[in-house]
Amino acid sequence: MELKVIAYARNGHTDKFGIPRQSREESPILTRIVFEPEYRIPEALRGIEGYSHLWLLWGFSEVDSWSPTVRPPRLGGNKRMGVFATRSPFRPNPIGLSSVKLVGIEDGELIVSGADVLDGTPIYDIKPYLSFSDSHEDAKNGFADETKEHKLEVVWEVESTTKTAKNLEQSLGLPRNTLDAVSYILSQDPRPGYQDDPEREYKLDYAGWTVTFVVNGPKVIVKKIVKI
Amino acid sequence: MELKVIAYARNGHTDKFGIPRQSREESPILTRIVFEPEYRIPEALRGIEGYSHLWLLWGFSEVDSWSPTVRPPRLGGNKRMGVFATRSPFRPNPIGLSSVKLVGIEDGELIVSGADVLDGTPIYDIKPYLSFSDSHEDAKNGFADETKEHKLEVVWEVESTTKTAKNLEQSLGLPRNTLDAVSYILSQDPRPGYQDDPEREYKLDYAGWTVTFVVNGPKVIVKKIVKI
Repeated sequence: MELKVIAYARNGHTDKFGIPRQSREESPILTRIVFEPEYRIPEALRGIEGYSHLWLLWGFSEVDSWSPTVRPPRLGGNKRMGVFATRSPFRPNPIGLSSVKLVGIEDGELIVSGADVLDGTPIYDIKPYLSFSDSHEDAKNGFADETKEHKLEVVWEVESTTKTAKNLEQSLGLPRNTLDAVSYILSQDPRPGYQDDPEREYKLDYAGWTVTFVVNGPKVIVKKIVKI
Repeated sequence: MELKVIAYARNGHTDKFGIPRQSREESPILTRIVFEPEYRIPEALRGIEGYSHLWLLWGFSEVDSWSPTVRPPRLGGNKRMGVFATRSPFRPNPIGLSSVKLVGIEDGELIVSGADVLDGTPIYDIKPYLSFSDSHEDAKNGFADETKEHKLEVVWEVESTTKTAKNLEQSLGLPRNTLDAVSYILSQDPRPGYQDDPEREYKLDYAGWTVTFVVNGPKVIVKKIVKI
């Protein structure tokens, strides 16, 4: 089967670094689904507004080989697992699957939150999420359960005249939602593998801004955020 | 992207009639995932036994056109909805998505239950089900919620010397699991649209057997089951 690109994802993830490893319901990161001209047909979305969640089937960019075993990042990158036991991109057909929240419909485009995809990702299909067949609250998550979630506390130590998040966003001249999105990304610990050097400065691009941060124990300290 | 078939589904659904409209956790219907030689690699499944549920990405057979709007069977087949608001096969990229229960692994093949697919369906990907990103128990199901579920009671009025299900299966000479599977299929009301003629005899093929039944109100009455 030859897949046709029906749309492209547009969001602030212009940089692979910082993309959440899986879609998460609580993610504030917004993605716009921009249809290709041939598929930009308002009737094709009729009834979709009744669903709270959707599935996106999308293509992993720049992946052109697969491997029977892969090293899942959540196992520290040093243990090999079967590719079909992981959501790794290096699979025979590099298709990603993400459940997202439907936030809105604007000008024939879908706005969703929680998509763990890069800006410009090709979308192959959009399906409604059906809780009676898709939801298995008690599913056993294999080795994905073995690693405990570690969420980091995000502290903004940028130069600013204000302390509250809302005012901080304004005083830094950030577009709406950017501070929430960056805080969320950093709380997920975007560092590769299990690096742990409190001196090391990391840089992350999001939505046209470069964020400089360090990680010290359970805390991410944001040092700078500047326009690219 | 050009999709490669990694495996084929093998089950008793040799007939489109009777395939459940969505995958369901409680389904007793077993499907065997038989890998193509190139992908029949035991290591590619390493760690999969830790998961209770999997995703299958598969191809709708015999679909080569799409339509911006479709008539969902659950709305009685007379209302048009946007294709992206449905799980209809008539989509730009006819890929199906089903969550299934992992029942076992045998000779490098996966045995799953609950797959709503035809025998011989091409499989393009197998992914682990991750409850923390894939499960949304309270998702709003749009118009799919509007139609109340109608499950039918299944009564076996076949000629037999016994009444209990287990013995009935044996006395009819059916392979193990067949009676459960057929009862499940019939309980889902496989009739097309909202036909309602208590006189009409329906025939359904499953796993090499032809089942003859009628539907009278909330009851399915099985009249005959014979080897094809």
